[in-house]
Amino acid sequence: MPVGTQATVKALTPGDLHAAGAQMILGNTYHLNLRPTAERIARLGGLHRFMAWDGPILTDSGGFQVFSMADLRDVDDDGVTFTSHLDGSTHRLTPERAMEIQALLGSDIAMAFDQLVDPGLPLAQVADAMQRTHRWAARSLAARGRPDQAVFGIVQGGVDAELRRASVAAIGALAFDGIAVGGLSVGESKVQMAATLDVVAEALADDPRPRYLMGVGSPADFFTAVERGIDLFDCVLPTRVARTGQVWTDAGRLNLRNAALMDDPAPIDADCACEACRNHSRAYVAHLFRARELLAYRLASVHNVTWTLELMRRLRVSLADGSFTELRGRIGEGFGRAP
Amino acid sequence: MPVGTQATVKALTPGDLHAAGAQMILGNTYHLNLRPTAERIARLGGLHRFMAWDGPILTDSGGFQVFSMADLRDVDDDGVTFTSHLDGSTHRLTPERAMEIQALLGSDIAMAFDQLVDPGLPLAQVADAMQRTHRWAARSLAARGRPDQAVFGIVQGGVDAELRRASVAAIGALAFDGIAVGGLSVGESKVQMAATLDVVAEALADDPRPRYLMGVGSPADFFTAVERGIDLFDCVLPTRVARTGQVWTDAGRLNLRNAALMDDPAPIDADCACEACRNHSRAYVAHLFRARELLAYRLASVHNVTWTLELMRRLRVSLADGSFTELRGRIGEGFGRAP
Repeated sequence: MPVGTQATVKALTPGDLHAAGAQMILGNTYHLNLRPTAERIARLGGLHRFMAWDGPILTDSGGFQVFSMADLRDVDDDGVTFTSHLDGSTHRLTPERAMEIQALLGSDIAMAFDQLVDPGLPLAQVADAMQRTHRWAARSLAARGRPDQAVFGIVQGGVDAELRRASVAAIGALAFDGIAVGGLSVGESKVQMAATLDVVAEALADDPRPRYLMGVGSPADFFTAVERGIDLFDCVLPTRVARTGQVWTDAGRLNLRNAALMDDPAPIDADCACEACRNHSRAYVAHLFRARELLAYRLASVHNVTWTLELMRRLRVSLADGSFTELRGRIGEGFGRAP
Repeated sequence: MPVGTQATVKALTPGDLHAAGAQMILGNTYHLNLRPTAERIARLGGLHRFMAWDGPILTDSGGFQVFSMADLRDVDDDGVTFTSHLDGSTHRLTPERAMEIQALLGSDIAMAFDQLVDPGLPLAQVADAMQRTHRWAARSLAARGRPDQAVFGIVQGGVDAELRRASVAAIGALAFDGIAVGGLSVGESKVQMAATLDVVAEALADDPRPRYLMGVGSPADFFTAVERGIDLFDCVLPTRVARTGQVWTDAGRLNLRNAALMDDPAPIDADCACEACRNHSRAYVAHLFRARELLAYRLASVHNVTWTLELMRRLRVSLADGSFTELRGRIGEGFGRAP
């Protein structure tokens, strides 16, 4: 899922996203509720109409941003009080309010409200946050507001195998439509991420529900996680790095600020069918970055989103025809050896 | 002509420009020669291929920017020495070099190198610059480098009727493919601009060559100038004001930073067929501006370029069917009463 934090995947239109092969996109409850507000989006017909995206939308619950971006004022068992990163105004999120906001936005999949903690904290604190996440999961499910919206639960537990198993048991026992893995890609090592996904995969066993790894990741991460049974991803990385001039290709990363590219008539990736690669040379996009032209960010974003979604398509094909290891060797290792 | 200063009409792709109805676009010799340089663009196949625009391109000669943006070091009869606004490096432009650069860029229409002066300067200085412009015009024409490139001359003379008549006589006597009016929209009043265009129109009489008013203008200016026989315009205004949130509609200007628009489900202009108006509400684009999202600048630019080119189409129709005055009353006056 390309990430549309503020009701737009940065620099791209819905038409660009369809052309890139996007199936579902993500919206951020924390940001949208602060601006333009969930109530305003509801009055304007919901998030799909507001941003003119006619495909599925998953909204997160705001938990991740509250614990990573906002100025926290109070966390208790009922919910979280924080001040906005935009204007310092005070807000409160509870499982019930997070579900209400997502019902107002009208996303197709809502996420339970969870508590994120640094996996490097003492185990007792990680365990406390996990237990609270379980209580909030049940309340989120009970607060489900609309029958046309699926709800996914979130497994926490840091990088501790016992806690992760307990969390899968607790969340898996609830009537969620899908299971998400939270609390990864937040500072732990790649080896810890892979080991934790192994634990989760084993604990979920043959649970048939879709599995979503939140906030991940890089091309190498996709291989690590798909190999461990993950179905769904969201990540800002493709568009965020694009805006710095980093594009992803079958041969690895390419930095469009590299002076040598100013004279390179080849497209970013000769095998890519995106608008940037069909029409433009590396030399041109490199020029646009140097000239700080808005089109630079757009073309690099179009490419990275297209390339990433095409990688996911090839990953699906590789699982069906048994060529996963070959694909990982050919592409994944250009982005760093997988654990 | 939408303006593609640095080999891009800001925020837009060639596909956007075609969809907006663009026929010809403008590239800036001053900017392109500093970065990425005319020689590099020539090595990469010329400006059309470099920016992937398959329609006609007109390049200016760099004169306007040298006299308005650069740090001038020396102006003599041979040419101009200046330091780059980018890195302080020293450069020289002469009529011959301006034509060489434009031949390297491979534009369809090249402009003669001219000297711009503030029309408010003492008449003797305006006259001196005009005389030099005439000498440079002859040298530009003599330096014409390629048979597939048209060359337009530029009439100067400030806002003085005698000088303008003399300039039309001098430039009109040369074998240019078109006649441009320079030195307007640089601080003179709207009444002075209209009066100067009257003088030029009378002096050109039934000269059959296309007439191009450089660097103009606003919607109101188009009516003023078309009424006085102008065929061609270029202006950064549609995209420049778009990036500040100002969009143009049949009902006049609309400021997308106006808080009331945050709840307005209507499109920017219900009669406009651009991507922004087909798919998005004022509320959405207003939100994007407040959130400083890149898509804001793109959608507002798509709209203003589309609306402006559609206005020009309607102006052409109005000349054919006699409805010019009605069209000016209905639309032009929403942008300020014409002189």
